[in-house]
Amino acid sequence: MKRIAILGPGLLGGSVALALRDRDGVEVRLWARRPEAVEEARSARIAHLATGSLVEAVAGADTVLLCVPVGAMEALVRQALPVLSPDTLVTDVGSVKEPVCRALAPLLEGRALFVGSHPMAGSEKAGLSAARPDLFQNAVCIVTPEEGRTPVLAEQRAVAFWSALGGRVKSLTPEVHDRVCALISHLPHVTAAALVNVVEAACPEAFGFCGAGFRDSTRVAAGLPEMWTEILSSNRQAVAAGLRGLISVLEETAVQLEQGRESETALHSFLASAKARRDTLLPGNGNVPGKSSS
Amino acid sequence: MKRIAILGPGLLGGSVALALRDRDGVEVRLWARRPEAVEEARSARIAHLATGSLVEAVAGADTVLLCVPVGAMEALVRQALPVLSPDTLVTDVGSVKEPVCRALAPLLEGRALFVGSHPMAGSEKAGLSAARPDLFQNAVCIVTPEEGRTPVLAEQRAVAFWSALGGRVKSLTPEVHDRVCALISHLPHVTAAALVNVVEAACPEAFGFCGAGFRDSTRVAAGLPEMWTEILSSNRQAVAAGLRGLISVLEETAVQLEQGRESETALHSFLASAKARRDTLLPGNGNVPGKSSS
Repeated sequence: MKRIAILGPGLLGGSVALALRDRDGVEVRLWARRPEAVEEARSARIAHLATGSLVEAVAGADTVLLCVPVGAMEALVRQALPVLSPDTLVTDVGSVKEPVCRALAPLLEGRALFVGSHPMAGSEKAGLSAARPDLFQNAVCIVTPEEGRTPVLAEQRAVAFWSALGGRVKSLTPEVHDRVCALISHLPHVTAAALVNVVEAACPEAFGFCGAGFRDSTRVAAGLPEMWTEILSSNRQAVAAGLRGLISVLEETAVQLEQGRESETALHSFLASAKARRDTLLPGNGNVPGKSSS
Repeated sequence: MKRIAILGPGLLGGSVALALRDRDGVEVRLWARRPEAVEEARSARIAHLATGSLVEAVAGADTVLLCVPVGAMEALVRQALPVLSPDTLVTDVGSVKEPVCRALAPLLEGRALFVGSHPMAGSEKAGLSAARPDLFQNAVCIVTPEEGRTPVLAEQRAVAFWSALGGRVKSLTPEVHDRVCALISHLPHVTAAALVNVVEAACPEAFGFCGAGFRDSTRVAAGLPEMWTEILSSNRQAVAAGLRGLISVLEETAVQLEQGRESETALHSFLASAKARRDTLLPGNGNVPGKSSS
Protein backbone atom coordinates (compact mmCIF):
# COMPACT_ATOMS: atom_id res chain seq x y z
CA MET A 1 0.00 0.00 0.00
CA LYS A 2 1.34 3.39 -1.02
CA ARG A 3 0.28 6.29 1.12
CA ILE A 4 0.39 9.82 -0.15
CA ALA A 5 -0.25 12.83 2.07
CA ILE A 6 -1.32 15.91 0.15
CA LEU A 7 -0.97 19.03 2.24
CA GLY A 8 -3.26 21.72 0.89
CA PRO A 9 -6.61 21.19 -0.87
CA GLY A 10 -6.29 23.69 -3.74
CA LEU A 11 -6.28 23.21 -7.50
CA LEU A 12 -3.00 21.29 -7.57
CA GLY A 13 -3.44 19.22 -4.40
CA GLY A 14 -7.02 18.42 -5.36
CA SER A 15 -6.00 17.40 -8.86
CA VAL A 16 -3.30 15.04 -7.56
CA ALA A 17 -5.87 13.51 -5.18
CA LEU A 18 -8.38 13.04 -8.01
CA ALA A 19 -5.71 11.48 -10.23
CA LEU A 20 -4.63 8.96 -7.59
CA ARG A 21 -7.64 8.15 -5.40
CA ASP A 22 -8.98 5.36 -7.60
CA ARG A 23 -5.68 3.62 -8.27
CA ASP A 24 -5.13 0.19 -6.78
CA GLY A 25 -2.96 0.08 -3.71
CA VAL A 26 -2.88 3.83 -3.20
CA GLU A 27 -4.19 5.59 -0.14
CA VAL A 28 -4.70 9.32 -0.57
CA ARG A 29 -4.76 11.53 2.51
CA LEU A 30 -5.57 15.19 2.26
CA TRP A 31 -4.76 17.75 4.91
CA ALA A 32 -6.35 21.18 5.01
CA ARG A 33 -5.90 23.95 7.56
CA ARG A 34 -9.44 25.32 7.48
CA PRO A 35 -12.26 23.10 8.80
CA GLU A 36 -14.54 24.19 5.91
CA ALA A 37 -11.90 23.01 3.44
CA VAL A 38 -11.70 19.64 5.20
CA GLU A 39 -15.48 19.43 4.99
CA GLU A 40 -15.49 20.33 1.28
CA ALA A 41 -12.84 17.68 0.54
CA ARG A 42 -14.85 15.12 2.48
CA SER A 43 -18.11 15.80 0.73
CA ALA A 44 -16.36 15.74 -2.64
CA ARG A 45 -14.82 12.39 -1.64
CA ILE A 46 -11.60 13.64 -3.10
CA ALA A 47 -9.39 11.48 -0.89
CA HIS A 48 -9.64 8.39 1.31
CA LEU A 49 -8.98 10.60 4.29
CA ALA A 50 -9.52 14.34 4.63
CA THR A 51 -8.32 15.75 7.90
CA GLY A 52 -7.32 18.88 9.73
CA SER A 53 -4.71 16.93 11.70
CA LEU A 54 -1.27 17.17 10.15
CA VAL A 55 0.01 14.20 12.16
CA GLU A 56 -2.89 12.02 11.05
CA ALA A 57 -2.22 12.92 7.40
CA VAL A 58 1.54 12.53 7.42
CA ALA A 59 2.23 9.62 9.79
CA GLY A 60 3.17 6.54 7.78
CA ALA A 61 2.99 8.29 4.40
CA ASP A 62 5.50 7.27 1.71
CA THR A 63 5.14 10.59 -0.04
CA VAL A 64 4.29 14.02 1.32
CA LEU A 65 3.30 16.64 -1.25
CA LEU A 66 3.31 20.27 -0.12
CA CYS A 67 0.56 22.16 -1.95
CA VAL A 68 0.41 25.24 0.28
CA PRO A 69 1.74 28.71 -0.51
CA VAL A 70 5.52 28.87 -0.70
CA GLY A 71 5.72 31.03 2.42
CA ALA A 72 3.76 28.51 4.51
CA MET A 73 5.89 25.48 3.66
CA GLU A 74 8.69 25.78 6.19
CA ALA A 75 6.41 26.05 9.23
CA LEU A 76 4.31 23.15 8.00
CA VAL A 77 7.34 20.93 7.49
CA ARG A 78 8.63 21.81 10.97
CA GLN A 79 5.33 20.65 12.42
CA ALA A 80 5.44 17.43 10.41
CA LEU A 81 9.09 16.60 11.25
CA PRO A 82 8.33 14.30 14.20
CA VAL A 83 6.22 11.95 12.05
CA LEU A 84 8.40 11.92 8.93
CA SER A 85 10.64 8.95 8.29
CA PRO A 86 14.02 9.07 6.46
CA ASP A 87 12.58 7.25 3.47
CA THR A 88 9.53 9.50 3.07
CA LEU A 89 9.65 11.51 -0.15
CA VAL A 90 8.84 15.16 0.57
CA THR A 91 8.28 17.41 -2.41
CA ASP A 92 6.17 20.43 -3.27
CA VAL A 93 4.39 22.24 -6.11
CA GLY A 94 5.63 25.78 -5.52
CA SER A 95 6.18 28.08 -8.50
CA VAL A 96 9.47 29.38 -7.07
CA LYS A 97 12.15 26.88 -6.11
CA GLU A 98 15.26 28.59 -4.78
CA PRO A 99 13.65 29.92 -1.56
CA VAL A 100 11.76 26.65 -1.02
CA CYS A 101 14.85 24.49 -1.41
CA ARG A 102 16.98 26.85 0.69
CA ALA A 103 14.43 26.57 3.52
CA LEU A 104 13.49 22.90 3.30
CA ALA A 105 16.61 21.03 2.17
CA PRO A 106 18.66 21.68 5.34
CA LEU A 107 15.62 21.11 7.53
CA LEU A 108 14.91 17.71 5.99
CA GLU A 109 18.49 16.46 5.57
CA GLY A 110 18.54 12.93 7.02
CA ARG A 111 14.93 13.32 8.17
CA ALA A 112 13.24 12.68 4.83
CA LEU A 113 14.03 12.47 1.10
CA PHE A 114 13.52 16.00 -0.15
CA VAL A 115 13.57 17.48 -3.65
CA GLY A 116 11.63 20.45 -5.02
CA SER A 117 9.03 20.09 -7.80
CA HIS A 118 7.03 22.43 -9.97
CA PRO A 119 4.32 21.02 -12.22
CA MET A 120 3.64 23.65 -14.92
CA ALA A 121 -0.04 22.97 -14.63
CA GLY A 122 -1.67 25.62 -12.56
CA SER A 123 -4.47 27.73 -13.92
CA GLU A 124 -6.00 31.12 -13.42
CA LYS A 125 -8.78 29.12 -11.78
CA ALA A 126 -8.08 28.26 -8.19
CA GLY A 127 -9.43 25.95 -5.51
CA LEU A 128 -10.68 22.43 -5.16
CA SER A 129 -13.67 23.07 -7.41
CA ALA A 130 -11.32 23.60 -10.38
CA ALA A 131 -9.38 20.37 -9.71
CA ARG A 132 -9.22 17.79 -12.51
CA PRO A 133 -7.67 14.30 -12.56
CA ASP A 134 -6.03 14.99 -15.95
CA LEU A 135 -4.43 18.29 -14.98
CA PHE A 136 -0.90 16.88 -15.24
CA GLN A 137 -1.36 14.90 -18.45
CA ASN A 138 1.46 16.02 -20.76
CA ALA A 139 2.23 18.99 -18.52
CA VAL A 140 5.89 19.82 -18.05
CA CYS A 141 6.81 18.90 -14.46
CA ILE A 142 10.13 20.25 -13.26
CA VAL A 143 12.05 18.63 -10.43
CA THR A 144 14.89 20.65 -8.95
CA PRO A 145 17.69 18.54 -7.45
CA GLU A 146 20.70 20.33 -6.00
CA GLU A 147 24.15 19.01 -6.89
CA GLY A 148 25.77 17.31 -3.91
CA ARG A 149 22.77 17.79 -1.64
CA THR A 150 19.65 16.10 -3.03
CA PRO A 151 19.58 12.31 -2.47
CA VAL A 152 19.48 10.48 -5.82
CA LEU A 153 16.58 8.44 -4.51
CA ALA A 154 14.57 11.60 -3.81
CA GLU A 155 14.99 12.76 -7.41
CA GLN A 156 14.19 9.31 -8.82
CA ARG A 157 11.03 8.99 -6.78
CA ALA A 158 9.85 12.51 -7.61
CA VAL A 159 10.43 11.82 -11.32
CA ALA A 160 8.46 8.58 -11.02
CA PHE A 161 5.69 10.36 -9.11
CA TRP A 162 5.07 13.05 -11.73
CA SER A 163 5.52 10.59 -14.59
CA ALA A 164 2.82 8.40 -13.09
CA LEU A 165 0.49 11.41 -13.24
CA GLY A 166 1.22 11.84 -16.95
CA GLY A 167 3.73 14.67 -16.63
CA ARG A 168 6.70 15.27 -18.92
CA VAL A 169 9.39 15.47 -16.27
CA LYS A 170 12.50 17.65 -16.65
CA SER A 171 15.24 18.50 -14.16
CA LEU A 172 16.71 21.93 -13.45
CA THR A 173 18.64 23.33 -10.52
CA PRO A 174 16.46 25.56 -8.29
CA GLU A 175 18.35 28.67 -9.49
CA VAL A 176 17.95 27.89 -13.20
CA HIS A 177 14.32 26.94 -12.60
CA ASP A 178 13.64 30.34 -11.10
CA ARG A 179 15.31 32.19 -13.98
CA VAL A 180 13.38 30.09 -16.52
CA CYS A 181 10.04 30.61 -14.76
CA ALA A 182 10.70 34.32 -14.37
CA LEU A 183 10.79 34.45 -18.18
CA ILE A 184 8.03 32.05 -19.21
CA SER A 185 5.58 32.42 -16.35
CA HIS A 186 6.19 35.34 -14.00
CA LEU A 187 6.99 37.93 -16.67
CA PRO A 188 3.89 37.06 -18.76
CA HIS A 189 1.84 37.34 -15.57
CA VAL A 190 3.06 40.87 -14.86
CA THR A 191 2.55 41.79 -18.51
CA ALA A 192 -1.01 40.48 -18.58
CA ALA A 193 -1.89 42.43 -15.43
CA ALA A 194 -0.22 45.54 -16.85
CA LEU A 195 -2.18 45.25 -20.14
CA VAL A 196 -5.46 45.10 -18.25
CA ASN A 197 -4.54 48.04 -16.02
CA VAL A 198 -3.35 50.14 -18.97
CA VAL A 199 -6.64 49.67 -20.82
CA GLU A 200 -8.55 50.42 -17.61
CA ALA A 201 -6.62 53.66 -17.19
CA ALA A 202 -6.74 54.77 -20.83
CA CYS A 203 -10.23 53.73 -21.96
CA PRO A 204 -12.33 51.32 -19.84
CA GLU A 205 -15.02 51.28 -22.57
CA ALA A 206 -12.53 49.39 -24.75
CA PHE A 207 -13.14 46.22 -22.71
CA GLY A 208 -16.54 45.97 -24.38
CA PHE A 209 -14.84 45.33 -27.72
CA CYS A 210 -12.36 42.63 -26.72
CA GLY A 211 -11.87 39.60 -28.93
CA ALA A 212 -10.20 36.31 -28.07
CA GLY A 213 -6.78 37.91 -28.64
CA PHE A 214 -7.06 40.21 -25.64
CA ARG A 215 -8.71 37.51 -23.56
CA ASP A 216 -5.96 34.98 -24.22
CA SER A 217 -3.19 37.54 -23.82
CA THR A 218 -4.50 38.49 -20.39
CA ARG A 219 -5.97 35.19 -19.15
CA VAL A 220 -3.34 34.62 -16.49
CA ALA A 221 -4.10 38.02 -14.94
CA ALA A 222 -7.19 36.37 -13.42
CA GLY A 223 -4.90 34.37 -11.08
CA LEU A 224 -5.09 34.90 -7.33
CA PRO A 225 -3.41 38.20 -6.38
CA GLU A 226 -2.24 36.82 -2.99
CA MET A 227 -0.56 33.83 -4.60
CA TRP A 228 1.04 35.87 -7.36
CA THR A 229 2.27 38.60 -5.04
CA GLU A 230 4.10 35.87 -3.17
CA ILE A 231 5.46 34.23 -6.33
CA LEU A 232 6.70 37.49 -7.83
CA SER A 233 8.17 38.66 -4.52
CA SER A 234 9.95 35.34 -3.95
CA ASN A 235 11.57 35.62 -7.37
CA ARG A 236 11.92 39.38 -7.43
CA GLN A 237 15.41 39.70 -8.86
CA ALA A 238 14.86 37.41 -11.83
CA VAL A 239 11.44 38.91 -12.57
CA ALA A 240 12.79 42.46 -12.36
CA ALA A 241 15.64 41.52 -14.72
CA GLY A 242 13.14 40.06 -17.19
CA LEU A 243 11.01 43.19 -16.91
CA ARG A 244 14.02 45.38 -17.66
CA GLY A 245 14.66 43.34 -20.82
CA LEU A 246 11.01 43.57 -21.85
CA ILE A 247 10.84 47.30 -21.21
CA SER A 248 13.84 47.91 -23.42
CA VAL A 249 12.33 45.90 -26.30
CA LEU A 250 9.01 47.76 -25.96
CA GLU A 251 10.87 51.07 -25.78
CA GLU A 252 12.65 50.26 -29.04
CA THR A 253 9.35 49.37 -30.70
CA ALA A 254 7.69 52.56 -29.48
CA VAL A 255 10.55 54.58 -30.97
CA GLN A 256 10.22 52.72 -34.28
CA LEU A 257 6.50 53.49 -34.41
CA GLU A 258 7.11 57.12 -33.54
CA GLN A 259 9.75 57.41 -36.27
CA GLY A 260 7.33 56.55 -39.05
CA ARG A 261 7.54 54.63 -42.30
CA GLU A 262 11.34 54.35 -42.46
CA SER A 263 11.32 51.91 -39.56
CA GLU A 264 8.91 49.38 -41.05
CA THR A 265 11.74 46.99 -41.90
CA ALA A 266 12.81 46.88 -38.26
CA LEU A 267 9.22 46.40 -37.13
CA HIS A 268 8.74 43.58 -39.61
CA SER A 269 11.90 41.83 -38.48
CA PHE A 270 10.82 42.16 -34.82
CA LEU A 271 7.46 40.53 -35.64
CA ALA A 272 8.95 37.92 -37.97
CA SER A 273 11.49 36.64 -35.44
CA ALA A 274 8.78 36.40 -32.79
CA LYS A 275 6.50 34.47 -35.15
CA ALA A 276 9.29 32.10 -36.22
CA ARG A 277 10.01 31.22 -32.61
CA ARG A 278 6.37 31.12 -31.49
CA ASP A 279 5.59 28.68 -34.31
CA THR A 280 8.02 26.18 -32.78
CA LEU A 281 6.08 25.93 -29.49
CA LEU A 282 3.99 22.83 -29.10
CA PRO A 283 0.30 23.58 -29.58
CA GLY A 284 -0.86 22.18 -26.25
CA ASN A 285 0.25 20.33 -23.17
CA GLY A 286 -2.63 17.93 -23.17
CA ASN A 287 -4.61 19.73 -20.49
CA VAL A 288 -6.30 21.99 -23.01
CA PRO A 289 -9.93 21.81 -21.80
CA GLY A 290 -9.20 23.82 -18.67
CA LYS A 291 -6.66 26.03 -20.43
CA SER A 292 -4.20 25.35 -17.66
CA SER A 293 -0.92 27.03 -17.06
CA SER A 294 1.50 27.67 -14.30
CA MET B 1 -31.21 37.15 -55.29
CA LYS B 2 -28.56 38.79 -53.15
CA ARG B 3 -25.09 38.95 -54.63
CA ILE B 4 -22.07 39.43 -52.45
CA ALA B 5 -18.60 40.01 -53.88
CA ILE B 6 -15.82 39.09 -51.46
CA LEU B 7 -12.52 40.60 -52.53
CA GLY B 8 -9.67 38.61 -51.02
CA PRO B 9 -9.68 34.87 -50.21
CA GLY B 10 -8.01 34.88 -46.80
CA LEU B 11 -9.27 33.76 -43.41
CA LEU B 12 -11.93 36.46 -43.15
CA GLY B 13 -13.10 36.50 -46.76
CA GLY B 14 -13.13 32.72 -46.86
CA SER B 15 -15.11 32.51 -43.61
CA VAL B 16 -17.74 34.96 -44.88
CA ALA B 17 -18.03 32.89 -48.07
CA LEU B 18 -18.43 29.65 -46.09
CA ALA B 19 -21.04 31.27 -43.85
CA LEU B 20 -23.14 32.50 -46.78
CA ARG B 21 -22.70 30.10 -49.68
CA ASP B 22 -25.43 27.68 -48.66
CA ARG B 23 -28.05 30.28 -47.79
CA ASP B 24 -31.11 30.52 -49.99
CA GLY B 25 -31.12 33.38 -52.43
CA VAL B 26 -27.51 34.33 -51.89
CA GLU B 27 -24.87 34.27 -54.59
CA VAL B 28 -21.32 34.42 -53.28
CA ARG B 29 -18.57 35.62 -55.58
CA LEU B 30 -14.96 35.53 -54.56
CA TRP B 31 -12.20 37.51 -56.20
CA ALA B 32 -8.53 36.69 -55.71
CA ARG B 33 -5.50 38.34 -57.28
CA ARG B 34 -3.33 35.25 -57.59
CA PRO B 35 -4.43 32.51 -60.03
CA GLU B 36 -3.42 29.81 -57.50
CA ALA B 37 -5.73 31.39 -54.93
CA VAL B 38 -8.60 31.40 -57.46
CA GLU B 39 -7.87 27.74 -58.13
CA GLU B 40 -7.78 26.92 -54.41
CA ALA B 41 -11.11 28.67 -53.84
CA ARG B 42 -12.62 26.81 -56.78
CA SER B 43 -11.51 23.39 -55.66
CA ALA B 44 -12.71 24.13 -52.11
CA ARG B 45 -16.07 25.19 -53.63
CA ILE B 46 -16.02 28.07 -51.24
CA ALA B 47 -18.16 30.34 -53.42
CA HIS B 48 -20.53 30.10 -56.37
CA LEU B 49 -18.00 31.94 -58.45
CA ALA B 50 -14.26 32.27 -57.84
CA THR B 51 -12.55 34.56 -60.31
CA GLY B 52 -9.46 36.62 -60.97
CA SER B 53 -11.57 39.23 -62.78
CA LEU B 54 -12.56 42.09 -60.51
CA VAL B 55 -15.24 43.26 -62.94
CA GLU B 56 -16.78 39.80 -63.08
CA ALA B 57 -16.88 39.60 -59.28
CA VAL B 58 -18.22 43.08 -58.61
CA ALA B 59 -20.64 43.81 -61.46
CA GLY B 60 -24.21 43.54 -60.22
CA ALA B 61 -23.22 42.79 -56.61
CA ASP B 62 -25.40 44.21 -53.81
CA THR B 63 -22.54 44.07 -51.34
CA VAL B 64 -18.79 44.31 -51.87
CA LEU B 65 -16.61 43.20 -48.98
CA LEU B 66 -12.95 44.22 -49.05
CA CYS B 67 -10.84 41.50 -47.43
CA VAL B 68 -7.43 42.55 -48.72
CA PRO B 69 -4.65 44.27 -46.76
CA VAL B 70 -5.52 47.82 -45.74
CA GLY B 71 -2.86 49.26 -48.04
CA ALA B 72 -4.29 47.51 -51.10
CA MET B 73 -7.89 48.69 -50.66
CA GLU B 74 -7.79 52.07 -52.36
CA ALA B 75 -6.30 50.79 -55.62
CA LEU B 76 -8.77 47.93 -55.71
CA VAL B 77 -11.75 50.22 -55.17
CA ARG B 78 -10.53 52.54 -57.93
CA GLN B 79 -10.47 49.59 -60.31
CA ALA B 80 -13.95 48.52 -59.24
CA LEU B 81 -15.49 52.02 -59.47
CA PRO B 82 -16.84 51.66 -63.02
CA VAL B 83 -18.96 48.63 -62.09
CA LEU B 84 -20.23 49.83 -58.72
CA SER B 85 -23.73 51.18 -58.42
CA PRO B 86 -24.88 53.90 -55.98
CA ASP B 87 -26.86 51.38 -53.95
CA THR B 88 -24.03 48.83 -53.61
CA LEU B 89 -22.84 48.47 -50.02
CA VAL B 90 -19.05 48.61 -49.89
CA THR B 91 -17.40 47.72 -46.61
CA ASP B 92 -14.19 46.10 -45.44
CA VAL B 93 -12.63 44.01 -42.68
CA GLY B 94 -9.46 46.02 -42.01
CA SER B 95 -8.07 46.18 -38.47
CA VAL B 96 -7.40 49.91 -38.76
CA LYS B 97 -10.23 52.21 -39.77
CA GLU B 98 -9.13 55.84 -39.89
CA PRO B 99 -6.77 55.46 -42.91
CA VAL B 100 -9.26 53.18 -44.69
CA CYS B 101 -12.18 55.56 -44.24
CA ARG B 102 -10.06 58.59 -45.13
CA ALA B 103 -9.07 56.91 -48.41
CA LEU B 104 -12.34 55.25 -49.39
CA ALA B 105 -15.14 57.51 -48.16
CA PRO B 106 -14.38 60.43 -50.53
CA LEU B 107 -13.70 58.05 -53.40
CA LEU B 108 -17.04 56.29 -52.98
CA GLU B 109 -19.23 59.30 -52.17
CA GLY B 110 -22.27 59.06 -54.46
CA ARG B 111 -20.74 56.04 -56.22
CA ALA B 112 -21.63 53.42 -53.61
CA LEU B 113 -22.81 53.13 -50.00
CA PHE B 114 -19.60 52.99 -47.97
CA VAL B 115 -18.95 52.39 -44.28
CA GLY B 116 -15.94 50.76 -42.63
CA SER B 117 -16.21 47.49 -40.67
CA HIS B 118 -13.92 45.47 -38.43
CA PRO B 119 -15.06 42.05 -37.28
CA MET B 120 -12.96 41.17 -34.20
CA ALA B 121 -12.60 37.65 -35.42
CA GLY B 122 -9.24 37.20 -37.02
CA SER B 123 -6.83 34.60 -35.77
CA GLU B 124 -3.13 33.95 -35.66
CA LYS B 125 -3.95 31.39 -38.33
CA ALA B 126 -4.18 32.86 -41.80
CA GLY B 127 -5.45 31.86 -45.22
CA LEU B 128 -8.39 30.10 -46.76
CA SER B 129 -7.48 26.79 -45.11
CA ALA B 130 -8.21 28.29 -41.67
CA ALA B 131 -11.61 29.69 -42.75
CA ARG B 132 -14.68 28.57 -40.77
CA PRO B 133 -18.36 29.33 -41.33
CA ASP B 134 -18.86 30.10 -37.62
CA LEU B 135 -15.94 32.52 -37.30
CA PHE B 136 -18.24 35.50 -36.67
CA GLN B 137 -20.67 33.80 -34.29
CA ASN B 138 -20.82 36.07 -31.21
CA ALA B 139 -17.75 37.97 -32.35
CA VAL B 140 -17.80 41.71 -31.79
CA CYS B 141 -18.17 43.36 -35.21
CA ILE B 142 -17.48 47.08 -35.26
CA VAL B 143 -18.91 49.35 -37.95
CA THR B 144 -17.40 52.83 -38.18
CA PRO B 145 -19.80 55.45 -39.55
CA GLU B 146 -18.58 59.04 -39.79
CA GLU B 147 -20.91 61.77 -38.56
CA GLY B 148 -22.28 63.77 -41.48
CA ARG B 149 -20.60 61.67 -44.14
CA THR B 150 -21.67 58.02 -43.94
CA PRO B 151 -25.10 57.37 -45.49
CA VAL B 152 -27.52 56.02 -42.86
CA LEU B 153 -28.43 53.23 -45.26
CA ALA B 154 -24.78 52.12 -45.50
CA GLU B 155 -24.56 51.78 -41.73
CA GLN B 156 -27.91 49.99 -41.50
CA ARG B 157 -26.96 47.49 -44.19
CA ALA B 158 -23.52 46.84 -42.70
CA VAL B 159 -25.10 46.24 -39.28
CA ALA B 160 -27.58 43.82 -40.86
CA PHE B 161 -24.79 42.08 -42.77
CA TRP B 162 -22.65 41.31 -39.71
CA SER B 163 -25.70 40.49 -37.59
CA ALA B 164 -26.73 37.91 -40.17
CA LEU B 165 -23.34 36.27 -39.72
CA GLY B 166 -23.89 36.05 -35.96
CA GLY B 167 -21.80 39.06 -34.98
CA ARG B 168 -22.49 41.35 -32.02
CA VAL B 169 -22.43 44.64 -33.88
CA LYS B 170 -21.27 47.90 -32.28
CA SER B 171 -20.64 51.32 -33.80
CA LEU B 172 -17.63 53.56 -33.23
CA THR B 173 -16.18 56.45 -35.19
CA PRO B 174 -13.04 55.44 -37.15
CA GLU B 175 -10.84 57.48 -34.79
CA VAL B 176 -12.26 55.96 -31.60
CA HIS B 177 -12.11 52.50 -33.19
CA ASP B 178 -8.40 52.93 -33.85
CA ARG B 179 -7.70 54.09 -30.29
CA VAL B 180 -9.73 51.18 -28.87
CA CYS B 181 -8.02 48.60 -31.10
CA ALA B 182 -4.60 50.03 -30.32
CA LEU B 183 -5.32 49.12 -26.69
CA ILE B 184 -7.10 45.77 -26.97
CA SER B 185 -5.50 44.29 -30.07
CA HIS B 186 -2.41 46.09 -31.36
CA LEU B 187 -0.75 46.61 -27.98
CA PRO B 188 -1.22 42.96 -26.91
CA HIS B 189 0.25 41.95 -30.27
CA VAL B 190 3.43 43.97 -29.72
CA THR B 191 3.63 42.68 -26.15
CA ALA B 192 3.29 39.05 -27.21
CA ALA B 193 6.03 39.45 -29.83
CA ALA B 194 8.23 41.24 -27.29
CA LEU B 195 7.76 38.46 -24.69
CA VAL B 196 8.86 35.83 -27.21
CA ASN B 197 11.87 37.88 -28.31
CA VAL B 198 12.91 38.60 -24.72
CA VAL B 199 12.92 34.91 -23.82
CA GLU B 200 14.81 34.12 -27.03
CA ALA B 201 17.46 36.68 -26.14
CA ALA B 202 17.75 35.79 -22.44
CA CYS B 203 17.41 31.99 -22.41
CA PRO B 204 16.14 30.12 -25.50
CA GLU B 205 16.20 26.84 -23.53
CA ALA B 206 13.31 28.22 -21.47
CA PHE B 207 10.91 27.60 -24.38
CA GLY B 208 11.19 23.88 -23.61
CA PHE B 209 9.43 24.45 -20.27
CA CYS B 210 6.46 26.54 -21.41
CA GLY B 211 3.01 25.81 -20.07
CA ALA B 212 -0.32 26.98 -21.43
CA GLY B 213 0.17 30.36 -19.73
CA PHE B 214 3.06 31.36 -21.96
CA ARG B 215 1.40 29.85 -25.00
CA ASP B 216 -1.84 31.78 -24.47
CA SER B 217 -0.04 34.99 -23.55
CA THR B 218 1.93 34.89 -26.80
CA ARG B 219 -0.53 33.19 -29.17
CA VAL B 220 -1.19 36.30 -31.26
CA ALA B 221 2.55 36.66 -31.96
CA ALA B 222 2.11 33.83 -34.49
CA GLY B 223 0.14 36.22 -36.73
CA LEU B 224 1.48 37.18 -40.17
CA PRO B 225 4.38 39.66 -39.80
CA GLU B 226 3.50 41.43 -43.09
CA MET B 227 -0.10 41.99 -42.03
CA TRP B 228 0.84 43.13 -38.55
CA THR B 229 3.58 45.46 -39.73
CA GLU B 230 0.94 47.16 -41.83
CA ILE B 231 -1.63 47.28 -39.02
CA LEU B 232 0.82 48.66 -36.46
CA SER B 233 2.24 51.18 -38.94
CA SER B 234 -1.22 52.35 -39.98
CA ASN B 235 -2.08 53.01 -36.35
CA ARG B 236 1.37 54.05 -35.20
CA GLN B 237 0.45 57.01 -33.02
CA ALA B 238 -2.20 55.25 -30.99
CA VAL B 239 -0.07 52.11 -30.60
CA ALA B 240 2.97 54.12 -29.54
CA ALA B 241 0.85 55.99 -26.98
CA GLY B 242 -0.42 52.66 -25.60
CA LEU B 243 3.14 51.34 -25.46
CA ARG B 244 4.26 54.42 -23.51
CA GLY B 245 1.50 53.75 -20.98
CA LEU B 246 2.43 50.08 -20.72
CA ILE B 247 6.13 50.81 -20.34
CA SER B 248 5.46 53.17 -17.46
CA VAL B 249 3.33 50.56 -15.63
CA LEU B 250 6.01 47.89 -16.15
CA GLU B 251 8.70 50.32 -15.03
CA GLU B 252 6.77 50.96 -11.82
CA THR B 253 6.41 47.22 -11.20
CA ALA B 254 10.13 46.63 -11.84
CA VAL B 255 10.97 49.30 -9.27
CA GLN B 256 8.58 47.72 -6.76
CA LEU B 257 10.24 44.34 -7.21
CA GLU B 258 13.68 45.84 -6.91
CA GLN B 259 12.70 47.65 -3.71
CA GLY B 260 11.91 44.45 -1.86
CA ARG B 261 9.35 43.41 0.71
CA GLU B 262 8.08 46.88 1.60
CA SER B 263 6.42 47.18 -1.80
CA GLU B 264 4.32 44.02 -1.58
CA THR B 265 1.17 45.99 -0.84
CA ALA B 266 1.57 47.97 -4.05
CA LEU B 267 2.28 44.79 -6.00
CA HIS B 268 -0.80 43.13 -4.54
CA SER B 269 -3.00 46.07 -5.41
CA PHE B 270 -1.63 46.12 -8.99
CA LEU B 271 -2.49 42.41 -9.38
CA ALA B 272 -5.84 42.67 -7.57
CA SER B 273 -7.15 45.51 -9.75
CA ALA B 274 -6.11 43.63 -12.90
CA LYS B 275 -7.86 40.47 -11.68
CA ALA B 276 -11.03 42.34 -10.72
CA ARG B 277 -11.28 43.83 -14.21
CA ARG B 278 -10.19 40.68 -16.06
CA ASP B 279 -12.89 38.71 -14.25
CA THR B 280 -15.56 40.93 -15.83
CA LEU B 281 -14.59 39.96 -19.40
CA LEU B 282 -16.88 37.47 -21.06
CA PRO B 283 -15.34 34.01 -21.16
CA GLY B 284 -15.64 33.52 -24.92
CA ASN B 285 -17.00 35.06 -28.09
CA GLY B 286 -18.53 31.87 -29.37
CA ASN B 287 -15.73 31.10 -31.79
CA VAL B 288 -13.76 29.28 -29.14
CA PRO B 289 -12.73 26.09 -31.02
CA GLY B 290 -10.37 28.02 -33.28
CA LYS B 291 -9.31 30.41 -30.52
CA SER B 292 -10.00 33.34 -32.80
CA SER B 293 -9.16 36.93 -32.23
CA SER B 294 -8.53 40.09 -34.11
